[in-house]
Amino acid sequence: MSASTSLKLRLPTFVLVLEVVMIALYGIFVTYDDNSNAKLQNNETDPMENSMYRDYPYFADIQVMIFLGFGCLLAFFRFYGFSGMVFNFLTATFAIQWAILIQGYFQFYSDGKIHLGVINLINAEFACAVVLISFGAVLGKTSPVQLLVMALLEIPIFAVTEWAVLKYLRINDAGGSILIHLFACYFGLGVTFVLYRPRLNKGHPKETTSYNSDILSVMGTLFLWVFWPSFNSALTFKGDDQHRAVLHTFLGLSSSTITAFALSAMFNKRGKITMADIQNVTLAGGVTVGASVDMMISPVAAYALGIMGCAACFFGYKYLTPFLAQRLRIQDQCGIHNLHGLTGLISSTAGICAILMATEDTYGPSMYQIFSHRAPPEGDPKLLELQKLIPGLKPGLGRTAQEQALFQVAAVFATIAAAAAGGLLTGLVMKLPFMASPSDENCFDDELFFNVPSDFDALSDYKITTLIAITLPYLPQ
Amino acid sequence: MSASTSLKLRLPTFVLVLEVVMIALYGIFVTYDDNSNAKLQNNETDPMENSMYRDYPYFADIQVMIFLGFGCLLAFFRFYGFSGMVFNFLTATFAIQWAILIQGYFQFYSDGKIHLGVINLINAEFACAVVLISFGAVLGKTSPVQLLVMALLEIPIFAVTEWAVLKYLRINDAGGSILIHLFACYFGLGVTFVLYRPRLNKGHPKETTSYNSDILSVMGTLFLWVFWPSFNSALTFKGDDQHRAVLHTFLGLSSSTITAFALSAMFNKRGKITMADIQNVTLAGGVTVGASVDMMISPVAAYALGIMGCAACFFGYKYLTPFLAQRLRIQDQCGIHNLHGLTGLISSTAGICAILMATEDTYGPSMYQIFSHRAPPEGDPKLLELQKLIPGLKPGLGRTAQEQALFQVAAVFATIAAAAAGGLLTGLVMKLPFMASPSDENCFDDELFFNVPSDFDALSDYKITTLIAITLPYLPQ
Amino acid sequence: MSASTSLKLRLPTFVLVLEVVMIALYGIFVTYDDNSNAKLQNNETDPMENSMYRDYPYFADIQVMIFLGFGCLLAFFRFYGFSGMVFNFLTATFAIQWAILIQGYFQFYSDGKIHLGVINLINAEFACAVVLISFGAVLGKTSPVQLLVMALLEIPIFAVTEWAVLKYLRINDAGGSILIHLFACYFGLGVTFVLYRPRLNKGHPKETTSYNSDILSVMGTLFLWVFWPSFNSALTFKGDDQHRAVLHTFLGLSSSTITAFALSAMFNKRGKITMADIQNVTLAGGVTVGASVDMMISPVAAYALGIMGCAACFFGYKYLTPFLAQRLRIQDQCGIHNLHGLTGLISSTAGICAILMATEDTYGPSMYQIFSHRAPPEGDPKLLELQKLIPGLKPGLGRTAQEQALFQVAAVFATIAAAAAGGLLTGLVMKLPFMASPSDENCFDDELFFNVPSDFDALSDYKITTLIAITLPYLPQ
Repeated sequence: MSASTSLKLRLPTFVLVLEVVMIALYGIFVTYDDNSNAKLQNNETDPMENSMYRDYPYFADIQVMIFLGFGCLLAFFRFYGFSGMVFNFLTATFAIQWAILIQGYFQFYSDGKIHLGVINLINAEFACAVVLISFGAVLGKTSPVQLLVMALLEIPIFAVTEWAVLKYLRINDAGGSILIHLFACYFGLGVTFVLYRPRLNKGHPKETTSYNSDILSVMGTLFLWVFWPSFNSALTFKGDDQHRAVLHTFLGLSSSTITAFALSAMFNKRGKITMADIQNVTLAGGVTVGASVDMMISPVAAYALGIMGCAACFFGYKYLTPFLAQRLRIQDQCGIHNLHGLTGLISSTAGICAILMATEDTYGPSMYQIFSHRAPPEGDPKLLELQKLIPGLKPGLGRTAQEQALFQVAAVFATIAAAAAGGLLTGLVMKLPFMASPSDENCFDDELFFNVPSDFDALSDYKITTLIAITLPYLPQ
Repeated sequence: MSASTSLKLRLPTFVLVLEVVMIALYGIFVTYDDNSNAKLQNNETDPMENSMYRDYPYFADIQVMIFLGFGCLLAFFRFYGFSGMVFNFLTATFAIQWAILIQGYFQFYSDGKIHLGVINLINAEFACAVVLISFGAVLGKTSPVQLLVMALLEIPIFAVTEWAVLKYLRINDAGGSILIHLFACYFGLGVTFVLYRPRLNKGHPKETTSYNSDILSVMGTLFLWVFWPSFNSALTFKGDDQHRAVLHTFLGLSSSTITAFALSAMFNKRGKITMADIQNVTLAGGVTVGASVDMMISPVAAYALGIMGCAACFFGYKYLTPFLAQRLRIQDQCGIHNLHGLTGLISSTAGICAILMATEDTYGPSMYQIFSHRAPPEGDPKLLELQKLIPGLKPGLGRTAQEQALFQVAAVFATIAAAAAGGLLTGLVMKLPFMASPSDENCFDDELFFNVPSDFDALSDYKITTLIAITLPYLPQ
Repeated sequence: MSASTSLKLRLPTFVLVLEVVMIALYGIFVTYDDNSNAKLQNNETDPMENSMYRDYPYFADIQVMIFLGFGCLLAFFRFYGFSGMVFNFLTATFAIQWAILIQGYFQFYSDGKIHLGVINLINAEFACAVVLISFGAVLGKTSPVQLLVMALLEIPIFAVTEWAVLKYLRINDAGGSILIHLFACYFGLGVTFVLYRPRLNKGHPKETTSYNSDILSVMGTLFLWVFWPSFNSALTFKGDDQHRAVLHTFLGLSSSTITAFALSAMFNKRGKITMADIQNVTLAGGVTVGASVDMMISPVAAYALGIMGCAACFFGYKYLTPFLAQRLRIQDQCGIHNLHGLTGLISSTAGICAILMATEDTYGPSMYQIFSHRAPPEGDPKLLELQKLIPGLKPGLGRTAQEQALFQVAAVFATIAAAAAGGLLTGLVMKLPFMASPSDENCFDDELFFNVPSDFDALSDYKITTLIAITLPYLPQ
């Protein structure tokens, strides 16, 4: 049994083959974009106008979220801290370099080349966030080879879905509630449905936290919390739109945080606070404001959305997660359906309401910039008029608010369907033999895939408790 | 006894009532400011000139300081790490959303509305820092309900003091040495004076650190250290003023850090370094340069201020804190009087000296920009002359350096008086029953308010030491 | 013996003497630069054009790398976490304030003054990084006094080398592969050669990690990883050059990370992952892309460089480090020769190739900006022509690609020679008595220089293992 989880051949083979593929594809297809290509600079180029100065600060913040935020958050298990943090590192790194290629093909491809700038990296980190969220559903029960396979398959399925939704349905989703959170959630649920482990429904002795791992995980939460406004605003229009995205995200997180404390204490038997709620439920507001994050929803709406998202997320953990595991064979290890699914649905609904209520009265002419598909089409005289007020306005599709709302609804269903189907398929591939999948006994255990230091298991509760029980009679007091 | 500290009803009630109030007030009063309102953008708006791009980077840095810096720093107790980090999270979040309203009313209110932009968030995070500093005085001895009550009362008292001092006394205090550090310190001392616990003067068995908690706390120090230049420069004038604020803060922290190491080793019995000094005293320089941080004090003065602040802080911890606790009933748990009070006083004095020594010779005409109250008043012909040199110069009060210095002195005393009175009052409210205040025995103990993991207390020193003592005779060696 | 390592007199004396020197030198020599001097601002100054807004974001990122990145990374020993993190803090702080003076004299000196702005701080933090890398060679075996002496001597030797190479050899080295990484590496090896401790070649019982220290160290790796693009791009030309530096650094780190995982599992006996590889080898790509980081090497080249650097670094740890220790008396504690030396050599070679292959075809006229020494000299008619295309182009030396390549080679050898000689000399000074150097037994032990909390040593493996062995027969199961 232990031989079958050795990474000695599997992991290097997989990685090195992929690297050869990457080198070939990067060599053939990837070149610099207009802002990173020396040849395209001339005497009219102002270096400080380079797109890098608009994008890099957000990229840097998202880097912290991906590698330190997710990394620490996923290290919450007592005997699975190495795996949580380090598999996150591996999976994220691979997912980003892979997404640069795949997304690049769909979004940054012209003249036979993928054109690379920091903006591609931001997009790729969003795709990577999708993979890491899905990872949450199967944390502790998968090998690094399985995680790489998951990233390998999820990135293209995500990229195609994103491309299709943006090209054909044309939706508003600045914070990615639909395309990032809903997709990631239902993909992850699809995977975990296939990887169902009935024996783990009764719990696993190593499925526990320690004092230090709980603190580490809260640090991860705080990294995510602190930089979430950058995440939600990275791809909005510059100017007032991005400004609002920051404000709404902050307010949503803020109200969701204090609500999480209140609910945690209220539904605890002894009126105490549960660390898992602080680690997860506090963040619900960041997702819930996502779909309408750049709209004129008013500050109080962001505040209220934070509370709603938090409540849905909290009760999801309490009632829905056990139900899914026991009745529907969906073991959602980190409860991504609560933090990303339920909140994503609320966010999508809120986005639709915001679209239906948007008027020129509230937005002024820039309404046609934010809701770009509502702008008049090419040739419409109203377009010329608007372009006098907003010089760079692009022609749109002339949609009404109701039409746009319907397309948003379609996007929600299409995304969920594509994600779930993709997740099921990916789960089947991950279940193939030779994937070094851990046995039920070895789940949640760093020792399976890591050389662990000598203090790793020396202090397990059982041993210590027994030691104390035995020696207690001899104690002077 | 244990029933009386249950959060089951108290915390949710308090939070949910506040949320209803918040929703009402945000709904009625809070709207977007000129830079975040879509309607106010037109064909002459350059999105990249949005105030967000000037403010957001400082906001993001201060976010890290508030949530990760303070959070880790306050987690230094061995059995109180959850509480230190997580109560900081709760208190900070609530303080900011509350400060947006209260400060907003005093500073960003017009046409019956509070106008919201990232700049308000920065101001609110400063108000939040005030609460968190005061929190340091009572760390380990307060329930989350008490902390929320403290934030609820401290924010308005602070906002009124800030408003009155800035409006009527009109002082220079870019780094907030007077309004942030002195206020926070004397408010906190007022609170802890009322909450005096005589039995804790002899120490408490859980008032101790662990190897991991000490390291975590140093990480908090480093987060604060690294981003302190952003804190001190966030609200200065843009350009050379902000540039100097960064330089001075860095130099002050730098000299204060190496001084802290020297003093720590020198006054240790066995010539070793004490972690508590590294965690706290190293930061003294950041406060000490505060009041004059944007002035032309010269780099060497910032360096010297760092050393002075560090020395005052160090000897404060050594001699003043025990004195305050035993003679004046002021139990200052984290020694905020050393890190914020003494340094704040030195900083205020240095600021006054810098004001008295400021001449046009050193500053050029921009002296009237930095010391804006010394600018000639409306109608003065010198104003017109100066406005040719500095286009945006606003009319001032025509104060002399001496007059400005006197107002600074007045501000110091007024701030301390308001803070101390406010702290005493707030302490009285916090002492009311139903606040879930921990008993003396249960101080410094996460178990009171948290579900703790099984390894929380398993390894307490006493148990392990006894185990070893008992089994030692049997050891082969 | 224990008396001789007391810091009671040594550390304070050393620090306080240095502070007096610093105050004298800062007072006499350091003033503000054009961007931080109030007097030099006038009615044509646009505050938002202040150099601070171009430099500060990179400075802030590098701050995190220096204090949190290196600090956590160096805290990987189980019983040496305080020392790793805190001596890093002390050494870095001192090195920066010292480098501001020394480098300032060579690079920012005019009219008898060192002119200070944020740009000097960035340069000083690079000098500081040099010291911290060298520190890695002697981690665990040096007192804080020795570390300060090392910084005191290394900074001037580095500053002179840097100045001489940049002034006389005039090289391209945007990411500092030659001047930072190679210098730091061979300086550190020189120091550790002199400080050779034969008895430690057999290992030391405290040379071990713990579960928490391993996680902490990975966090340090992640801080470095996440912000490395800022490090490598901080001093490039603004615009497309800096943009490419970010992209290449990210790609290099990315491929090096997945390669590190593959090699770690492949060469592990049981096919498991070794944390030390994740902590160190993943970062190799950041160094390897350094010398050509701003050139038009193409994205795939950055990707390939990451793989090469990672492989060299990995096999260096496996084969070269033991060889150096046992045969050449070079005990390289953290393996800096692998992470900075071998990768630096690969990077220098890659830089030379990139120089030889650079053509106007690829770069356009801006080739003469990136390779500034290839620009035509003053008076050359081609210069005027080019200046029409690139307005700010400065006259160069009219070097050919081959000439530039030869100067790069010369710089590599000169830097290594100066570093090794300087390191040997510094090692001799550090070996003097009165440096509080720890005895062999006391290496890797926080207790020597710190007051440690009571849980520090209570749980050492030996004690716990024996306890368990003894009580095991009595266990019910």
